Parts: sequence; C-alpha cells; structure tokens
Amino acid sequence: MLEVCLLGTGGMMPLPGRWLTALVLRYNGRMILVDCGEGTQIPLKTLGWGFKAIDAICFTHYHADHIAGLPGMLLTLGNSGREAPLTLMGPPELEKVIKGITVIAPELPFELNFEQLSGNHGESKKIDDIIIHSFPVNHTLPCLAYCIEIKRAGKFDLEKAKKHGVPMKLWSRLQKGEAMELEGRLFTPDMVLGEERKGLKVCYTTDTRPTEELAGFIENSDLFICEGMYSEDEKLQKAIDKKHMLFSEAAKLAKQGNVQELWLTHYSPALTEPEEHLHVASSIFSNTIAGKDLMTKTLSF
Amino acid sequence: MLEVCLLGTGGMMPLPGRWLTALVLRYNGRMILVDCGEGTQIPLKTLGWGFKAIDAICFTHYHADHIAGLPGMLLTLGNSGREAPLTLMGPPELEKVIKGITVIAPELPFELNFEQLSGNHGESKKIDDIIIHSFPVNHTLPCLAYCIEIKRAGKFDLEKAKKHGVPMKLWSRLQKGEAMELEGRLFTPDMVLGEERKGLKVCYTTDTRPTEELAGFIENSDLFICEGMYSEDEKLQKAIDKKHMLFSEAAKLAKQGNVQELWLTHYSPALTEPEEHLHVASSIFSNTIAGKDLMTKTLSF
Repeated sequence: MLEVCLLGTGGMMPLPGRWLTALVLRYNGRMILVDCGEGTQIPLKTLGWGFKAIDAICFTHYHADHIAGLPGMLLTLGNSGREAPLTLMGPPELEKVIKGITVIAPELPFELNFEQLSGNHGESKKIDDIIIHSFPVNHTLPCLAYCIEIKRAGKFDLEKAKKHGVPMKLWSRLQKGEAMELEGRLFTPDMVLGEERKGLKVCYTTDTRPTEELAGFIENSDLFICEGMYSEDEKLQKAIDKKHMLFSEAAKLAKQGNVQELWLTHYSPALTEPEEHLHVASSIFSNTIAGKDLMTKTLSF
Repeated sequence: MLEVCLLGTGGMMPLPGRWLTALVLRYNGRMILVDCGEGTQIPLKTLGWGFKAIDAICFTHYHADHIAGLPGMLLTLGNSGREAPLTLMGPPELEKVIKGITVIAPELPFELNFEQLSGNHGESKKIDDIIIHSFPVNHTLPCLAYCIEIKRAGKFDLEKAKKHGVPMKLWSRLQKGEAMELEGRLFTPDMVLGEERKGLKVCYTTDTRPTEELAGFIENSDLFICEGMYSEDEKLQKAIDKKHMLFSEAAKLAKQGNVQELWLTHYSPALTEPEEHLHVASSIFSNTIAGKDLMTKTLSF
C-alpha cells in the first residue's frame, strides 16, 4: 500500500496553523518527500513516520516556500543518525541552488546525491519500486509536476509459463520481477506474467497555470493534489499574472485528466477558509476535497 | 518603553509546539530582530507587531537554527509592502552567507544593507536611539552575543544651563539631545543636562560556553536571555564538547553579571519540560525564568 500525507496546504508563506505545501509518500519502507518549504520538518515530525527513511526529496522549483526548509531538514536528518546518501531531485540549477542554501548546514554526516531533471517531458527516475515521473509546468520560473507511480505486475499465467518452458523452481522469483539465467538461458518475468494490472498513481502539481499537457500527465491518477491558490473566478487575471490556478481551473484539470480524487492545496495566505469555497471546484469535479494540513490517505491495489 | 518578546525557545531544530530561539525588540516604532531560524516568521505573525517596522536583523552566527528563516522572512517583508532598506548584521562572512541562502528569494522590492561586525570586543551600532552592542563568544564557529541598550539622558539642570549661558529658547531641543548653533556659538545637550541616568539593557546570548568576559558584557542588564541547552549538570562534558551551556552555568553567569532577571532558552530538543528543572538554575540565581515561546516583557525607565 502507498501512504500519502499532505504535510501542509499553504502557499507563499507559512502561517500560524498552516504549514507550507509539501507531500510525503511511503511505500515498502521507502519515503519520498516532494517540496520542503520553511517549517516542513515540523509537520513531518508530527506525522511520526520518522526522518531516517527518506530516500529522496523532489523539488518542484526553487522558490523559498518550496525549498527553504531544506537546510534544517538536512541537519535534522543528520541528527537522526542518517549516514545513507540522500537523493535530491529538481529542475535545472539543482546543485547550484542547494550549494547556496546549505552554506548554513555544513558538515552533514551523509552525502547528497544530485539527480537534476532536465525539465523535458516524461523524464522518470526509479527508487526501488517507486517510479517518479516529472513534467514541466508553466510558472514564472522552471517548475515541475511530479507523478509517483507504483506499477502492478500481471497475475501469474500458468499457460504462458508452460509455453515458454520455464522450470517450476523459477516461477516464484520471476513472479516477483527478477530475471534469471539457468543453464545458459535467460528467463524474464514476462514469461510467467499476464498483462500488467492497474497500479497506483499520485500526482502533485503546484505553482503553475493549467495546461493541456498537464491533463495528460495526470491522466487516470488515483489522487491528484493540485494548487488552488485562489478560490474566486474573479481572480483569474491575478492567477494568470502570477502563474497560479483558480479552484475552478484545478477542478477542470481533474475532470479532463479523469482522476479519481482531487485535493486542493497551496492556498493564498488571504484564503483563510478554503472549505467555504469548495463548491466552486466540486460543482465541476465532484470528488474534490479541500486539502488540510496532515491529511493522509492510504492507496491499495 | 522597550518591549521584548522571546519568539521561540528551541535549539537545533524547530519542534511541534516549540519555535527556534529568536528575539524581537520594539522601541519608539523601531523593531530589531535577533536571529531568524526556520519558522521564526510564524510566531512573529502570531505576536502581531507586524513585519514592516523591522529595521534590522542581527545574527549571532550562521548555523541553520539561527538563520534558515531569513529567505522566507525577506519574502514576507516584501509581500508586506516594504520598500525601505533592511539592515542585516552579523559576524564575518555575513554577505557571503546571505547571498548563498537568498538564491531562493530573488527580486526583493527593497535593498539589503550589510553591516558586518568584526567580532571584536565592544563593537556598537546605532539605530535611532537603540544601541546594539555585540561581543564575541565561544562557540564552534564565530558567534556573537548582543546587548540592546537604550540610554537615558540626565534631568534638565537649570543651574548648569545658566552657567553655560544657554538661551531659554534652546532648552527644549537641547534637552531632547540635539546640538544647535546660535549666533556662531555651538550649544550641546550636556550644557543643560545633569548626569546620565540608568537606561535599559537587554542582553541575549546563545550558542556559547560561559566566559569571564561575557559576565562583564551583560553586567547590570535588566534582562538577560541566555541559552540553557542542557538542564542536568551531568551533561557538562557534552556542553563543553558542543560549546553550549548548562542551566547552572547560565545562572552563574547571571549572578556574576549582577543582572535583574534571567530567561533561559535554546533548549535541547530532548529537554521537553524545562520548567521541571528550573530549580537547578534558580538555586544559584533566584530570578531565573524558564523561557517560553512568545514570552513578552515591557521595560520602562
């Protein structure tokens, strides 16, 4: 099962009672954090999943409200006894930005592994069984949407295994996804598995205008977490100028992308009661939820 | 009157329910912030003094728990409509460190004015009537203690004014501290004022071992805010190794410095209930208070 927690729901600045937007995902003992604004380590501590298991931190972009919490997070990881390298992912200039802000967090007891993303369409990285897709969006500076995908293999297919002459002793490991050689012959999982089944897909995008391509990127996701900077449609021009989204635009995107569920987040500091405006989005896409700090969901196959 | 608020009391990392140690002072419409760790802008918002009036941010040193909140603070100041330059003070490498961490806070609508302190003994800066003294302490990297002083002029002395032949029409302005020329002669405030009276003095030091000289620096202060990283005397070796202080050491310093009142702060994250250990300090210096987030005091002449 894939556990998802929206650590905060604020945009621009952390507020008393509202953390900045960040997402944490946990699957099979692996943890991925997406964005790390000022204070993100605090709700993460409240959540109680621990810090040590974080494998990677993915940044959408390098505005302070999405990355300023990194130096403190790295020190807290260090204090938690971490020694394993930590992967940092993000759009171009990753290493330059990180080296700049970590001048105040020297002497970490673990290495940083920089995985800069090109910002081109459809780039993917893998951490064990977690696939991290990234996709360029339309903000005031290079910015990425992320999609976390867990694939689900097909069922064991006895006929297929027999057809390929796979020895029975290899079945179990092939079924788990391992390829193996036996007596000079290579056996691969597809020789014993039926068609791939529907997996799990969680998409996250903040700080962007809606785009046609984005609707494709998030297609059929189980959970789509999307910025809703402004609730009223009257703020369209502001949303265009600042390259953010309205509630209604996030809802249209969710509908277009045929997602299962939409969580709104990254609210403007002026938007103190997002629930009161939820109807603006739910009238377009009914399964819309106004994200709240520390909102958690478990997705299963 | 000088208002003082201890925004947070944590050391090392911000915790759920405990902000990092930082101090804000307000006098005659001027505001000084000392240290700005991750999240400091949040209790400052709760405090309700506003952001726009901050004239200067003084840093004790450049460990993340004392400075990582700066990029977010600068953006929030920008969003509050600030256009006036902001003064940043701190030990050597000030500009280099600030330029590093503000890579994520570009395009501010106001200028930064760097006032690097040498770290030598007894250096002072003035912002209007607020005098900011700094003093080197003993931590793992260059670190400063700060003392905020408001001087109080002597009373108006009629005899003295007459003795110096000061025309009556100049009395009021001279009494307010202005020097003036009249008919080719210079008149100065000391010509109408008696001896300087006791002013106000607030001292703040974190991240240091106690030193003899520090006792002199804080001498006779009305309020001494001092780190108390560890409560138990058994942690002396740890305090020495990490260059921090015990509760008892802070109390000894307060006693030696003959201060009016001691607030402990910068608690280790492991020290969850500092009040329970207060006796360790108050048995040495009775007027010791276990600092709490957003603890406020108003000092008057």
